[in-house]
Amino acid sequence: MNNNKLKITFLGGVGEIGKNMTALEYNDEIIIVDAGLTFPDDDLPGIDIVIPDMSYIIENKDKIKALILTHGHEDHIGAVPFLLEQVQMPVYGSRLTLALVENKMKEHPKVKYKWVAVKPRNVLKLGNFVIEFIKVSHSIAGALALSITTPAGTIVHTGDFKIDYEPIDGEMTDLSRVGEIGRKGVSLLLCESTNVCRKGYSMSEKSVGRTLEEIIKNHANNRIIVATFASNIHRMQQILSIAEKYNRKIAFTGRSMINVSEVALKLGELKFNRDNIVDLEKVDKMDDKEILIMTTGSQGEPMSALTRMASGEFKNLKIRKNDLVILSASPIPGNEKNVYNVINALYKLGADVIYDELADVHTSGHACQEELKLMHSLVKPKFFMPVHGEYRHLKTHKELAMALGMEERNIILPSIGMQVELSANSMKAVRTVKAGQRLVDGIGIGDMDSNVLRERKQLSEDGICVVCVNINNVAGEVIGDPFIITRGVVYADEQESFVQDAKACIIASLKEADLRGVDPTMIRSSLRRNVSNFIFKRTKRRPMILTIVTLG
Amino acid sequence: MNNNKLKITFLGGVGEIGKNMTALEYNDEIIIVDAGLTFPDDDLPGIDIVIPDMSYIIENKDKIKALILTHGHEDHIGAVPFLLEQVQMPVYGSRLTLALVENKMKEHPKVKYKWVAVKPRNVLKLGNFVIEFIKVSHSIAGALALSITTPAGTIVHTGDFKIDYEPIDGEMTDLSRVGEIGRKGVSLLLCESTNVCRKGYSMSEKSVGRTLEEIIKNHANNRIIVATFASNIHRMQQILSIAEKYNRKIAFTGRSMINVSEVALKLGELKFNRDNIVDLEKVDKMDDKEILIMTTGSQGEPMSALTRMASGEFKNLKIRKNDLVILSASPIPGNEKNVYNVINALYKLGADVIYDELADVHTSGHACQEELKLMHSLVKPKFFMPVHGEYRHLKTHKELAMALGMEERNIILPSIGMQVELSANSMKAVRTVKAGQRLVDGIGIGDMDSNVLRERKQLSEDGICVVCVNINNVAGEVIGDPFIITRGVVYADEQESFVQDAKACIIASLKEADLRGVDPTMIRSSLRRNVSNFIFKRTKRRPMILTIVTLG
Repeated sequence: MNNNKLKITFLGGVGEIGKNMTALEYNDEIIIVDAGLTFPDDDLPGIDIVIPDMSYIIENKDKIKALILTHGHEDHIGAVPFLLEQVQMPVYGSRLTLALVENKMKEHPKVKYKWVAVKPRNVLKLGNFVIEFIKVSHSIAGALALSITTPAGTIVHTGDFKIDYEPIDGEMTDLSRVGEIGRKGVSLLLCESTNVCRKGYSMSEKSVGRTLEEIIKNHANNRIIVATFASNIHRMQQILSIAEKYNRKIAFTGRSMINVSEVALKLGELKFNRDNIVDLEKVDKMDDKEILIMTTGSQGEPMSALTRMASGEFKNLKIRKNDLVILSASPIPGNEKNVYNVINALYKLGADVIYDELADVHTSGHACQEELKLMHSLVKPKFFMPVHGEYRHLKTHKELAMALGMEERNIILPSIGMQVELSANSMKAVRTVKAGQRLVDGIGIGDMDSNVLRERKQLSEDGICVVCVNINNVAGEVIGDPFIITRGVVYADEQESFVQDAKACIIASLKEADLRGVDPTMIRSSLRRNVSNFIFKRTKRRPMILTIVTLG
Repeated sequence: MNNNKLKITFLGGVGEIGKNMTALEYNDEIIIVDAGLTFPDDDLPGIDIVIPDMSYIIENKDKIKALILTHGHEDHIGAVPFLLEQVQMPVYGSRLTLALVENKMKEHPKVKYKWVAVKPRNVLKLGNFVIEFIKVSHSIAGALALSITTPAGTIVHTGDFKIDYEPIDGEMTDLSRVGEIGRKGVSLLLCESTNVCRKGYSMSEKSVGRTLEEIIKNHANNRIIVATFASNIHRMQQILSIAEKYNRKIAFTGRSMINVSEVALKLGELKFNRDNIVDLEKVDKMDDKEILIMTTGSQGEPMSALTRMASGEFKNLKIRKNDLVILSASPIPGNEKNVYNVINALYKLGADVIYDELADVHTSGHACQEELKLMHSLVKPKFFMPVHGEYRHLKTHKELAMALGMEERNIILPSIGMQVELSANSMKAVRTVKAGQRLVDGIGIGDMDSNVLRERKQLSEDGICVVCVNINNVAGEVIGDPFIITRGVVYADEQESFVQDAKACIIASLKEADLRGVDPTMIRSSLRRNVSNFIFKRTKRRPMILTIVTLG
């Protein structure tokens, strides 16, 4: 089956934020770009993580040639262990990306994997795919865009990127190489859309550094605690350099902060004199002005180091009056409340707090409108598909491309499961494959529409009432007292009279029925109805009701 | 007991957003300022609304002289029916505020109340309290600040306000009166803090109107749907005027939009030719360019008109390609996800959508830093307490006051339950009274730390497993089959083998025990432990386990 067409199948990351995963297929060869996860929100109680449905990958197991990772954020690498559990394949990415994957694999010791580190401008030939890696700036080091040439044309996949003219590592997004590739002719651009609603340019990482330095300089006598994303190596580098300049030692705290800083120091992505690193336990004996503590918890995550400091439950560090806490991050949508709770709690402990509403202590890693326009203008693709964003972002990105002169018929807004065929002169959506979300819940993996989630939601709204009666259906009698147990239904002061009256209701309900020769299941529904009505009348709540009728 | 001191007791709205309520007490007279509610977030599953703990009010029932309402937003009036249910008192507020309270009282037909409408510059004498009402701009019409003179000094309570030099109703925040009162000498300023972290000035309401007019003019052939807060009468007025100018009829939809527009038209707060109002049912027969629909749902509320339009479930209006939907509002923190879901869904139905990220279609009703500074400078109080905000807002507001020259010892950051005593020359926190949150859940009212919420949370995380066994403790035998029912624990494909193995586990557990003469409660705990371990080993989940052992 050779039809000279490239199939692009979207398994995540389009029409949603998170869990990016795209399959590129030419004849009997498939390469996968990214395999990310999403963290569940309150709609998914008890769920650990959300990963892409991989049915399509499993069905096409034999065609899979490689997994290519653009960068090491969880929404791009978080599902790698789950993917490799299903299908073996070599994994390509930058050194830092692979080091972060390796860290993750420790929790999945049974999964074998093989990885190959690549560098910007490296070219990788995999069957019909020729993949060139392109340096891009992002809020993590080692981020790469991809130029993928196939017999059906060249695709540019931006990964996540911004354009930062003052890069911390000295190398900016490789615009000249993007321009060269564009001049040779690009068939399709897949471009990220996260910040497409933001006008202008994103602030440079260095200008965040200048603000941080100003703050740290002006708090010369305070103990300083900085919370940021552990994966933002460039931010970390700036903070370490400022600490060194102002003669402060560094202590790391929070599991991912310790892990990532260790990995990055080892790889040389982070440059810092190890002699200036101290254990957190020693901090209490040091002068406030000699120390800067780098911690996790910038999103107010419930178990993070900063959240535990704020609640006074962190063993090794007690917040006190002379502390300055800097949250060098913005709340990710949905995390606002947790972040503000942490800030409020830190203030109450007497610390001073500086966060993004009060000073420019953070910048986004994603391109704003003018940066996106620059990328479009350099790549000059024939076809365009916006990726990495909610539907509103993809829609606005389409309008941006059209404003730059692209024709509407050359743009497709992808959705999860969509398969698009690309040839030299055409691009069209051809079918929808099985795709979507899979919920990782302890050991099991469930679906979005599973009974389990519906039941948990119902339980959380109104609680549960279990009624258990034991009957003798020969004598037609109730044996013993009926049991009634509620959870999440009745407040303490209502409890006693509630149970009494509920029992009376159950007994009355059973009296109505003729219990002789009755099938226990037969009286369950009337019992359930009567108890439900009793509870609603009394409390205006509608708990789940379980009725158990046993034969004694 | 006459000690010439004014007691100020904070029952809500400080250190938190919402449910504002303050008691002012001089000798044996108390007046209450506002009685608001908060809508519960995901932390409070199944809770309808949150209101202040009113123990202090009930304890001092005999002293209560009046309830004064600053304006008609839910966080200031939502708890009025619950307050009046406990204690009878006259209610004072602007006409619109009282009309909105009256609307609310329809759902509490048993509660009697008596209200007195007041106007700006009216002066009300209540025993030792002389209360003057001061016109302020806010995102609802009829908002009032209060100047309250007592023998212990004058307090200015700003309520919620902004300073808008282009007010829609022609009357701006009465700065000259505030200045006069300030010159006469104000002992204490209670000033709202919502936007204290925002630099500069808030945008004027009229500039939002200009943006809206530009958009509506440029979409001359589209059907236009505008979602905004029903209570924002000035926004509504601007939209109605624009509609009239561009020859569009108006249809209202959404319960609160219909109710409030009706009330406001009746009171003359909203000026619009009633002939230009059409029923929503008639809209389908009209030309797209002839109609503008005003709807609720700007916060993506699940049951609102706009949300149902977006999901295609709204009977009287189907979204289609020629529709332009304007969300003239910002998402309130916590509502972002719901709002973006609605926007995504509207885009998918082919509508064009304009919202606050894309254009200046909304402005806040709360004063930003420069406006707050103006208020402080005019009032020139001796003492200051920031109110209406999370702790971080109160803290930042304190810093703002200090930057303007106020001494730290003259500022108190209030917290819920705090009672402050004010005399001519001193202000100090004297004690903490019982105060906090009460959760309205159906008919009942519960506490924040109640068993019910803890149980609902546990149920929502991991579900429940009910085990029921019937034993004969004479023969020492299990009667019949053990029952096991789970909800929110096991995914469909695991179900069958799970139940089988769980039963085996239960039977094994019972076999271990000697059932002869056993007290059923004795074997419950070992049964619970064994089942819990079985489920954890198998699923890594820890559901709530209920064991019921009956004697057959």
